[in-house]
Amino acid sequence: MPQLRRDPVLGRWIIISRERRKRPTDFVIEEAKVLGGFCPLCPGNESFTPPEVLAYRNGTATLGDGPDWQVRVVPNKYPALMIEGDLGKEAEGLYDRMNGIGAHEVIVECPDHHDMFWSLPTEHLALVFRAYRDRLKDLERDPRFRYVMIFKNYGKAAGASLEHSHSQLIALPVLPRMLVSEFDGAESYFRYKDRCIFCDIIRQELQQNTRVVCVNDHFITISPFAPRTPFEMWILPRQHASGYCAHTQSQEMLTALAQIFSESLNRLEKCIPNVPYNFVLHTQPLRSGEMEHFHWHFEIVPKLTSIAGFEWGSGFYINPMPPEEATKYLRESLDG
Amino acid sequence: MPQLRRDPVLGRWIIISRERRKRPTDFVIEEAKVLGGFCPLCPGNESFTPPEVLAYRNGTATLGDGPDWQVRVVPNKYPALMIEGDLGKEAEGLYDRMNGIGAHEVIVECPDHHDMFWSLPTEHLALVFRAYRDRLKDLERDPRFRYVMIFKNYGKAAGASLEHSHSQLIALPVLPRMLVSEFDGAESYFRYKDRCIFCDIIRQELQQNTRVVCVNDHFITISPFAPRTPFEMWILPRQHASGYCAHTQSQEMLTALAQIFSESLNRLEKCIPNVPYNFVLHTQPLRSGEMEHFHWHFEIVPKLTSIAGFEWGSGFYINPMPPEEATKYLRESLDG
Repeated sequence: MPQLRRDPVLGRWIIISRERRKRPTDFVIEEAKVLGGFCPLCPGNESFTPPEVLAYRNGTATLGDGPDWQVRVVPNKYPALMIEGDLGKEAEGLYDRMNGIGAHEVIVECPDHHDMFWSLPTEHLALVFRAYRDRLKDLERDPRFRYVMIFKNYGKAAGASLEHSHSQLIALPVLPRMLVSEFDGAESYFRYKDRCIFCDIIRQELQQNTRVVCVNDHFITISPFAPRTPFEMWILPRQHASGYCAHTQSQEMLTALAQIFSESLNRLEKCIPNVPYNFVLHTQPLRSGEMEHFHWHFEIVPKLTSIAGFEWGSGFYINPMPPEEATKYLRESLDG
Repeated sequence: MPQLRRDPVLGRWIIISRERRKRPTDFVIEEAKVLGGFCPLCPGNESFTPPEVLAYRNGTATLGDGPDWQVRVVPNKYPALMIEGDLGKEAEGLYDRMNGIGAHEVIVECPDHHDMFWSLPTEHLALVFRAYRDRLKDLERDPRFRYVMIFKNYGKAAGASLEHSHSQLIALPVLPRMLVSEFDGAESYFRYKDRCIFCDIIRQELQQNTRVVCVNDHFITISPFAPRTPFEMWILPRQHASGYCAHTQSQEMLTALAQIFSESLNRLEKCIPNVPYNFVLHTQPLRSGEMEHFHWHFEIVPKLTSIAGFEWGSGFYINPMPPEEATKYLRESLDG
């Protein structure tokens, strides 16, 4: 019997259709690689990108577009938003619009063109997560921006257009709708229970232990109860914290995050080699102060070709793989 | 300068990024066709599908799986939901779930394997829209169901797995989240203004006349103000009506709907040959009575490969084509 499950935060219902059950090897993977050729993100080609806004050399934040960087952040050469100008909010009859002011940056995650995110050493990955933090902190000072989306498109099917390992950042003058729904859902739970819904989820998941992929001292990776796609994973801090920035100040925390991220992606990669995926950081809005009801986390969503097209238009998903089963595969992939 | 636009019903912000402006010929179309071979939807193969639940022969509703049908509706052989059983609603700690009870049907739109939806004669297309109505009416009598989603995936990139022209129907015991947001947004506008927001949109669009693709006596096709993708189109009845079923009782209305749908898709096809797309019918929940604040309509969303993957996960879209420009192309495609 298929099952309908409701995401407790968003109220989004999804169908777990066991009748269409699949094993990891049943998924057809579109080629994850994108076209090669000249790479503007490779060392030596620094002049082909706009000047860097942040880079780490020998573990230290530097600037100058010189060589020997470990992680490098540059403005997107073809930005979706413009950094210069004012918001110019206005109406057009009943419609609302404003200028497309914002930042659009590329986080080059490593110098070697052929390294994969999931294969980077923990210490190096920690630098990537430090770059997210440092860029967030810097962009927070611009009062025009209300939110910074940090995300990665890996593989052509997931929207990547460059092969060299990178993530992206978009600073926005508005809140994305999905985040608004998430804040609203979490807030109404908090009003009713006086507890953070994500803290309750973590407590229940650790107790049930059927959807926990892995844990370390500071983080937990779960298959969410109502996943949109097979092998969707969420990485959450075990201690309550609403903002990524404030919570990742220490090297210990960055290293723990890098460790669990790396382990989670390695497990995924072992289950479905070359799987394209997107991940998105869900954190509090800029300058919002600590929120009792929200809990920052990453959502990793594999992009599998068997997922039909209408679903993103309707907010309604059919998933052939129960998360409890996905969890088993993910656990056994490294430990089995 | 890029522009941020807010969908007035959903509150969804999208970026119109003119800097990435494209012409219709710039879009790379993944092959729309899906794999051929044996087709269970072709005449003569009626025994390879579950028994039909509705078919028109000589314009009359019939049953029996015989030949000479014009439009045929059959249960999906691999349904996402099961028709038999009770809902079995229950909690698992803080999570909610229920049995996956529902209907999943395939509307075979024409007998000829090679006919395209957009190329069907108006009278034939009217039969397809009549099938939607008649199935809605029948499923409404089942008290377990709260909503019927009717949609079409055309082309492989849009999720189609059969080539023979068909649409699908899923009867659900819950409301899809996107519809809940739409009802909520429309209702809060109505509370404030005492007017249907869609009626206001139609009035403003006819006045401005920059996003009107085509009209006839009963329907209007517009490029919405904040489209998710290039060439997104909405088809709305010009008179207020919240439910598809009650509003399409007359042959005149079905013919008018078939005419504008056909014209709209023909314009799209002329702009971007073979473009894969999804369309979804947005109508009121089953047995809800006439709603003053909601207005039924179709949303047609082309699936263009240049649209990145993370967007459906975040509810945040970047669209390289302003709808005013898309409208120009769509208008000129047949008239120019």
